[in-house]
Amino acid sequence: MKLNEAAENVLKVIDSYGFKEQGAYNLRLNGMAVCHGDSRHIRIVKKEDKPGIDIFISGEAKDEQVHIPVVMSESGMKDVVYNDFYIEDGADVTIIAGCGIHNDGCSESRHDGIHAFHIGKDANVKYIENHYAEGNGTGGKVLNPVTKIYVGENSIFTLETTQIKGVDSTERETFIELAKGAKLFVTEKLMTHADQSAISNMDVQLNGENSSARIVSRSVAKGTSRQVFHPRAVGNNLCHAHVQCDSIIMDEAEISSIPEINAKHVDAQIVHEAAIGRINDEQLTKLRTFGMSEEEAEAVIIETFLN
Amino acid sequence: MKLNEAAENVLKVIDSYGFKEQGAYNLRLNGMAVCHGDSRHIRIVKKEDKPGIDIFISGEAKDEQVHIPVVMSESGMKDVVYNDFYIEDGADVTIIAGCGIHNDGCSESRHDGIHAFHIGKDANVKYIENHYAEGNGTGGKVLNPVTKIYVGENSIFTLETTQIKGVDSTERETFIELAKGAKLFVTEKLMTHADQSAISNMDVQLNGENSSARIVSRSVAKGTSRQVFHPRAVGNNLCHAHVQCDSIIMDEAEISSIPEINAKHVDAQIVHEAAIGRINDEQLTKLRTFGMSEEEAEAVIIETFLN
Repeated sequence: MKLNEAAENVLKVIDSYGFKEQGAYNLRLNGMAVCHGDSRHIRIVKKEDKPGIDIFISGEAKDEQVHIPVVMSESGMKDVVYNDFYIEDGADVTIIAGCGIHNDGCSESRHDGIHAFHIGKDANVKYIENHYAEGNGTGGKVLNPVTKIYVGENSIFTLETTQIKGVDSTERETFIELAKGAKLFVTEKLMTHADQSAISNMDVQLNGENSSARIVSRSVAKGTSRQVFHPRAVGNNLCHAHVQCDSIIMDEAEISSIPEINAKHVDAQIVHEAAIGRINDEQLTKLRTFGMSEEEAEAVIIETFLN
Repeated sequence: MKLNEAAENVLKVIDSYGFKEQGAYNLRLNGMAVCHGDSRHIRIVKKEDKPGIDIFISGEAKDEQVHIPVVMSESGMKDVVYNDFYIEDGADVTIIAGCGIHNDGCSESRHDGIHAFHIGKDANVKYIENHYAEGNGTGGKVLNPVTKIYVGENSIFTLETTQIKGVDSTERETFIELAKGAKLFVTEKLMTHADQSAISNMDVQLNGENSSARIVSRSVAKGTSRQVFHPRAVGNNLCHAHVQCDSIIMDEAEISSIPEINAKHVDAQIVHEAAIGRINDEQLTKLRTFGMSEEEAEAVIIETFLN
């Protein structure tokens, strides 16, 4: 499968593990699945009733990967895709998703990925989602993902989402349910610049006994961009949750962090921490003594903060 | 002024500084101002157009007190009162307010205190508000305070609110604006039991350069009671804010903490911490080795936590 240069570049950025046409994979380009492959333990089936795929992951899968990147290189497309993951008991898998937009035109390009994860018992699932946009056109680059994750008994779900740059507008909706002994690890990284806007709503229901969640959100807002975070952790049983949101505000940006912790059970233990502040001046000065310009020093600090 | 025993007891609980008919004071009993006095620097004037008083505090007032307790000992009353404080530049004053309800009847007793504070420059104002209710009747005891506080340049405002016990339902609305160099210190303590419900919304606007806010909220929820906290700190200038909410959850209670931190300026530095958890088991065990019953040990821990 040969991609044009723009698509190829975008694909490289969003699939940091390296996209290859081998094992289990599905590449969606400009609203169409252009190539796909199954592996022994992972089967990808095109949906009949709507755009998108069903991904069946066997309990036999151990330390396996599935790559399902989405690339939009044509201006003015609106792509809605429904992907459902059915993950059997005991599976151990890393799912590399993400969406990259190259928009050189003046019309809006928009991708709405609606993902649902149905996870059995004792599974270990890592889901990586990178969002990135580029292009010299005036057309907006919009990504509105909806993610629903049902984590079964004693399973572990690791969610790593990164909005690298270039996305003009995003509204993320994430809903997670944790069964008995299930563990959730979330790392959300987000950078906005210019007049971009980002809204992230996350609802974590700790339903099962001994379920736990650790959510870390780190963001940088530059220019006149706007960010709103609304993570919500609801303890419905004996459980632990820790939510941490740290943001760096720059220029004329605005950041709003509205975490909600809700204990509905006497043994629910939930902690939240949030901080918004400007870039560390001491660090900046220190780096500048090494001969860096202010911009270079800022870039280093931001990269360190986000990684 | 002779009060009946019930009213006398309630007054003692809510005015922890000790209410006396001297200096500046105003006692409101069952919807009527029953006694009042001015001091040299503090003048209390009954409003003409609606229930309530205007309190004028001169800049000459130094380390002075004004007591304005409200007592409701008759069942089935609904009392709405508007109190406005006009505090001149440089005043140094402690205002002891609060509302106590004794309700032995089967009708609801409700007090809505609507307070506004207009504070000049370089003033130091401490506002203490205790809420308490008692009585064997089935009638509800409801307190819905609305508090608006405008803190002038380089003034300090200290707000200490305590809901001691017995209040069946409360909805607190607090709005605060801070001018240049103004400092706010808030301590909110709240205990709910049985099937009580408490909602506290607080909106702090840090408008002025170098304004700062430190908000500490501590609560205990027992029985099947419900608590919702929604503090909001908005940084509109170079400013610092620190919001901390800690709650102990017991029995079948439910606590929701939804703090919002909102930075609208690159030099706004805002930190939030919140934690909800059950009573510390180690502390409980330790105290019980001293021969305390579980209830006694719990009471000690709660008292320590709230004080």
